[in-house]
Formats: sequence, structure tokens, C-alpha cells
Amino acid sequence: MASPSSDEVSASMLQLPWFVAGSQALGIGCVVLVGIWMGHYRGGFSWNRDVLEFNVHPLCMILGMVFLYGDAIMVYRIFRQESKKCIKIVHAVVHLGALLTTIIGLVAVFHFHDAKSIPNLYSLHSWLGLTTVVMFGLQWVIGFLIFLYPAGLAALRAWYLPLHTFFGLAIFILAIASSLTGMTEKLLFVLSDTYHNMPVEAMLANSLGLLVVAFSMVVGYIVTRPEWKRPSQAEEEALSMHFHRITRGDDEDD
Amino acid sequence: MASPSSDEVSASMLQLPWFVAGSQALGIGCVVLVGIWMGHYRGGFSWNRDVLEFNVHPLCMILGMVFLYGDAIMVYRIFRQESKKCIKIVHAVVHLGALLTTIIGLVAVFHFHDAKSIPNLYSLHSWLGLTTVVMFGLQWVIGFLIFLYPAGLAALRAWYLPLHTFFGLAIFILAIASSLTGMTEKLLFVLSDTYHNMPVEAMLANSLGLLVVAFSMVVGYIVTRPEWKRPSQAEEEALSMHFHRITRGDDEDD
Repeated sequence: MASPSSDEVSASMLQLPWFVAGSQALGIGCVVLVGIWMGHYRGGFSWNRDVLEFNVHPLCMILGMVFLYGDAIMVYRIFRQESKKCIKIVHAVVHLGALLTTIIGLVAVFHFHDAKSIPNLYSLHSWLGLTTVVMFGLQWVIGFLIFLYPAGLAALRAWYLPLHTFFGLAIFILAIASSLTGMTEKLLFVLSDTYHNMPVEAMLANSLGLLVVAFSMVVGYIVTRPEWKRPSQAEEEALSMHFHRITRGDDEDD
Repeated sequence: MASPSSDEVSASMLQLPWFVAGSQALGIGCVVLVGIWMGHYRGGFSWNRDVLEFNVHPLCMILGMVFLYGDAIMVYRIFRQESKKCIKIVHAVVHLGALLTTIIGLVAVFHFHDAKSIPNLYSLHSWLGLTTVVMFGLQWVIGFLIFLYPAGLAALRAWYLPLHTFFGLAIFILAIASSLTGMTEKLLFVLSDTYHNMPVEAMLANSLGLLVVAFSMVVGYIVTRPEWKRPSQAEEEALSMHFHRITRGDDEDD
């Protein structure tokens, strides 16, 4: 496909704020729905290694691996006038928030399993989820070392950037798939005899699943639409300027 | 990100056949594993509106919505020397095969539900799956009318192509997510008391889930890697030539 012309880019820029606003409405909707599901229909939250501690797990995973992760990958599209270095730090910090929220969510489910003597890591959901979180942790550390650690080499950055972008989106999609299998598990565990009668809880949880999919599609569209990418020329100049500056020991901006 | 240089493209082209071969090994592995799961562990296949007719459903969905669909979106990357029109027809025909296989798989699960008096379309898996199949059907019909039907306008094609590409990949990812929730459902229905003891069937089905994810990641990498896209100049020329030819009533190639 041809690169978009500057007229096409200008016209499409008017649509970007609406898509970003839509993504935030969908993302907040996901967090609210999982909060209502666990807080109201599943009895609320605790941190006492009991059945209610489980409920922290879906809340943290939707907040961390879906909403915060999705927002973290959009920052380069949303903040277009700020310096690249500033946005890199925002990107890393929001992802760190996502990672810490995710770890709290994982601790909650391991506590719950231990309290109820349920084995860990036997289900497809747990295999997918663990793969997702391990890949996310590695991606964060490698990204930090290559893009933010001062010694990162320009050639290494240029080689790694497309892989970082590809795996960043792949991990997000894996998180969506993991959350959908988790919702399916929870619905079959707690509504095994009544799910097919479609009680309100089932409708709410199924709607949460579709909302998570809608959020991921809007985020995916925002980060992949060619007209909305940051201009490559400016990025290249910034990278080259940064490399030039760090070799002089002057790294206040890149 | 900057467009890849011609040297980068030439070097990366040597890797493409290995990635395509890897995708085919993973895709065939998915079909074989679901065949073993349903054929051996779940008792085999039938078309008699009984419990064994259900087993046709996962086989057809993995064959149609995962393997054939994934291969259909890769044809533009794999067949690089053939004319655009020829590849368009291959793309449409493989997708039609995927759609027909999917419809057989859907009929099987509706027959099974009717025979066992199980309600249809109450689960998150069914909501996701139906959304996926309806989007796929619409995408096929709209794609046919705009790209293959002789009256398609060049301006309309140019406007629709990025949307067709985005939704094409989004539907594939939705199919992967639907299949993972379907595997989770099936495992919890048939192994409810023994899943956590990790019998061979559970290991096999969990591995199928990871294999489906691996296939989708390799396919996703092949169709999105910038160096492996068809040259945009040639595409533009082809589109313009086609438009020129059809206005003269000569459409043996575009």
C-alpha cells in the first residue's frame, strides 16, 4: 500500500481524537463491568487468602493487561507534539503500572488456589496467561535496556524497534485471548447449571467479553493506521540527534 | 518507522520461505491435534445428529477459520511473481473454502445442540464465534464486490483496501480467540473433575491452544512485516492499469 499523502494525513487527524475518546469509553466500560461482576455478583473483594481474594484477579488483569496496556501502546499516537524522550518515559511508566497491577492480580489467584487447595497452572487459560505475562515482563526489560538505558546503540534500536512493536501488539492480543478464556472458565465454574438460562450475571459477563474485544479493536486500529503514525523523518532525525548527543555526553532530550 | 531499504528487503526475502514453511508446519499441526483430540479422545466423527456430530465442529473451525483463513491472508506474500488478479482469485477461493468449511462446522454444532436439547448461543464462546463468522461473511461479500466484481471503482478500492486489510487480520484474531474459548468450554464440560490432574487429553488440548496461538503469531508476522509487503509502486500501477483497461473493456489482467 502507498504511503498516505499529507492531505490524507491532515483529514484523518480530525478523526483521531474521536477514536481515542471511544477507546477510553470502552476501556473504562471494561473496568466498570468487571468491577460490577466481581464486586456485586461475586461478593466483593478481600486480601485474606479466601474465596473473595480470587475476585481481585479479574479486576487487576482487566485493569493492567487490558486497559493500562492498551493505553500505554497508544501514547505515541495521542501525544504528538511532545518530545520523543518524554513519550518514551510515559510509555515505560504506564507499562510499569500495568505490570505491577498484573503481578497483584497473579498473587491474588495463587493465594486463592493455595487457600482452596486447587492446583495451579493446569488450564489452557493459565498456560496462555503465564505465556502472556512472561513475554510482557521480558518485553519491558528488553525495551528499557535498548530504548531508555543511556548506553543503547542507535543501530541496535533501529533493528529492535519493529520487533518491539510487533511483539507489543502480539502480547496485547494474547492478553485479550487470555482474559476471554478466563471469563469462560469463571462462568462455567460459577454458573454451571444456570448459564444456558442467561441470568443477568451471564449477560453482563458475555457483554464484558465483547467490550474487551471492541476495546482491543479500536486500540489496534489507532496504533496500526498508517496516517496516524508519527512521521518517520522526525523519528529518524530524533534518533540520530540522540545518538549524536549521547556520544557528546549531552542527553537532555532525544 | 522508515520504509525498509532495497538491501534490507533483499536480505529479509531469504527468510520468508522459512517463516512460510514454519507457518504450514504449525497450521497442519493444529489440524492434526484437533483431529486426534476429537477422533481418538472424543470418540470420532458422525453426521447423525448425535453426540459424535459435535466433534465435526472443532475440526471444521480449526481447519476453516484458523488454517485455511491464515493461508488465505498470506497468499499475497507467498506468490510474489504472479499477477495481482491471479492472486486475488486465489485469495477469494481459499477464503470461500474457509467459509464453507466454517458453515459445515456451525451446522454440526446446531444439530448436536438440537439433538441434546441444549440451548444455542448463550455462551461467550458462541457470541464471539457468531460475531467472527458474520464479520467474515460480510468481509468476503464486500471484498468480492469491490475487488473482483468488474464494476469496482479504483477510488473505492483504494479507500477500502486498508479497511479490508485491518478487518481481515482482526477477524483472524477473533477466530483465534473464539477457538481458545471453545477449547476451554470443551475441556471444562468433558474433564470437569479430572482436568486439574492433567490427563493426556488435557495436555493435548492445552498444547493445541498454544499451537493455534503460535500459528497466528507467525501468520501475523508474515503479513505485517514491512519488508515482505508487495511493492506499493507495482500495486499502484496495477490498479491504475486495471482501471484504464476496464474503461476500455479489456480486463484480462490487472
